[in-house]
Amino acid sequence: MRIGILGTGLIGASIGLGLQEVGHDVIGWDADPAALAAAAERQAVREAAAREEVLDAEVVVLALPPEIVIRHVAELRTDALVMDVAGVKQPVAAACRLKRYVGTHPMAGREVSGPGAATASLFRGAAWVVVPGSAGPADVAVVERLIDGSLGARPVRMSAESHDVAVAAISHLPQLLASTLMNEAADRTDAMELVAGSFRDLTRVAASDPATWVEVLAANRAPLLEVLEEFLARLRALTDAVARDDRTEVSAVLARAQQERRTLGPQTVGVRIALADQPGELARVGRAFERAGVDVRDLQLRHAPYGGGGVLTVSVRSGDEATMRSAVEAEGLLLAE
Amino acid sequence: MRIGILGTGLIGASIGLGLQEVGHDVIGWDADPAALAAAAERQAVREAAAREEVLDAEVVVLALPPEIVIRHVAELRTDALVMDVAGVKQPVAAACRLKRYVGTHPMAGREVSGPGAATASLFRGAAWVVVPGSAGPADVAVVERLIDGSLGARPVRMSAESHDVAVAAISHLPQLLASTLMNEAADRTDAMELVAGSFRDLTRVAASDPATWVEVLAANRAPLLEVLEEFLARLRALTDAVARDDRTEVSAVLARAQQERRTLGPQTVGVRIALADQPGELARVGRAFERAGVDVRDLQLRHAPYGGGGVLTVSVRSGDEATMRSAVEAEGLLLAE
Repeated sequence: MRIGILGTGLIGASIGLGLQEVGHDVIGWDADPAALAAAAERQAVREAAAREEVLDAEVVVLALPPEIVIRHVAELRTDALVMDVAGVKQPVAAACRLKRYVGTHPMAGREVSGPGAATASLFRGAAWVVVPGSAGPADVAVVERLIDGSLGARPVRMSAESHDVAVAAISHLPQLLASTLMNEAADRTDAMELVAGSFRDLTRVAASDPATWVEVLAANRAPLLEVLEEFLARLRALTDAVARDDRTEVSAVLARAQQERRTLGPQTVGVRIALADQPGELARVGRAFERAGVDVRDLQLRHAPYGGGGVLTVSVRSGDEATMRSAVEAEGLLLAE
Repeated sequence: MRIGILGTGLIGASIGLGLQEVGHDVIGWDADPAALAAAAERQAVREAAAREEVLDAEVVVLALPPEIVIRHVAELRTDALVMDVAGVKQPVAAACRLKRYVGTHPMAGREVSGPGAATASLFRGAAWVVVPGSAGPADVAVVERLIDGSLGARPVRMSAESHDVAVAAISHLPQLLASTLMNEAADRTDAMELVAGSFRDLTRVAASDPATWVEVLAANRAPLLEVLEEFLARLRALTDAVARDDRTEVSAVLARAQQERRTLGPQTVGVRIALADQPGELARVGRAFERAGVDVRDLQLRHAPYGGGGVLTVSVRSGDEATMRSAVEAEGLLLAE
């Protein structure tokens, strides 16, 4: 299939690499000649083409910032199937005048940007939202096959409204909480002397690029405000419960969260391994995996504040739990309850 | 030095192991005979002793939950130097009637509990708060030498007030934010389908035990409320800035947080490994870790939709990146980049 990519930054170039790996013919264009040249040099596109040529492909991928995507879907005239990958979906859908348009959003990214950091595996295993727009079912199926069969991601179909509220809740709100928490702690010099692993986990995303975030947040303002107001009301209620020493209420909030957090990977069970601060400990973990021979669904390393110790949580399917636990013990590792 | 430990759970038993390693004579007691027997079996204490005998040691360590520590420092009569390790300091200091008391709090993780998971290296490199109480300078120096010279931690002297506000900001507030965020997202089924690594990072502590947290939060109620109200005011102001589309203000908040986050400890870099869906792939990863011999700070596995492939992100200190990358390649693994 002939695919044209408008915008050859990290996401566009990664899509180009992935699609070419399975034999698609990919050409690209970028408003920034340096980004386009870099993408061509990395062979993320077969050819750095003219904009008009890209728009003549069978499928056109708009891999551009939200505000530019909005302008394109309003002004572009093409008979090609067009998909975008912007992080907000309602404003794009509202502006769209294209005949065959499918909105999408890959839930993957990196801390770095630009075609130089592109990789064919960027999307592997990630959820990729598909919002059927003005395109018919056959076109939606084409897009989903590119996402699934070619790029190794998991298409998740939903409405533009659901998508925008969902990313507000799991991405935009968390970003604002992390930044606000970071600033709150930074104003207390004593506190900064004591930060440990959990605080680092919670504030890691606060190191993200402000310019990118300001645009995303602005583009998703209404859903974000809805989620922010809900969060503020919840935190107000919890604060009031702490103030009146209502331990039943505080406990209920924490207990529900504990239960929900545990179901994040619904059919999986976490096997927890207490890692000692000594050489070869993670190699033992690798041998335990090999011995167990089961499918490891997720890994989380909770690090001790300094040094090499910590707790490694290995998620496996419920039916594989016993096998994994025996393998861990057989390698002389310590299970942490 | 003869040291008596009251409470032989994870913290007490780990202190026992660490102090014996450098030649101290450690005896212990626990209200739970099983915990005491397990600590003795692990040789975390030389002897499971009677409570009175423990109180006759030169230094007595109270490694008990906050509410029990408060009762002990109010009621105990002993000429020994007494230190506690409870997570709140003002309520303990206020209740204290001991002649020679130093309040302390090791900032070490507690994902694991019980003497079975104790390790002499638990505190190595961690900050350990020291609050000089009723004891004189010579006694405070003894405690700091135990923390530093014997247990390998870093004594940080501060007032009980500063400590309690600091842990409210970097530990208790984050716990409440994580739980509230988890509950907010869990009410949106669509959102839960899309959760990625950053949301997992942010909500990991929401899986902690509610009963333990309710007690800690209640014991530190006043400082926690102060920090909660400040955080609510900050988040209110940020929400208002989003509402009026004040991008300058939103950007300023994010930029400050970015700058502060970057000053937190060692800079880490993510080395991304593309895992093939074949047996032994994770064992190869373990061998690569062993070969590199560097400190792995974080692990994230993102799974392909079908089978065992995916992308594993390994975070290491910037200076260790090249070593880790070569080790990965030497094991025949594919760097995803």
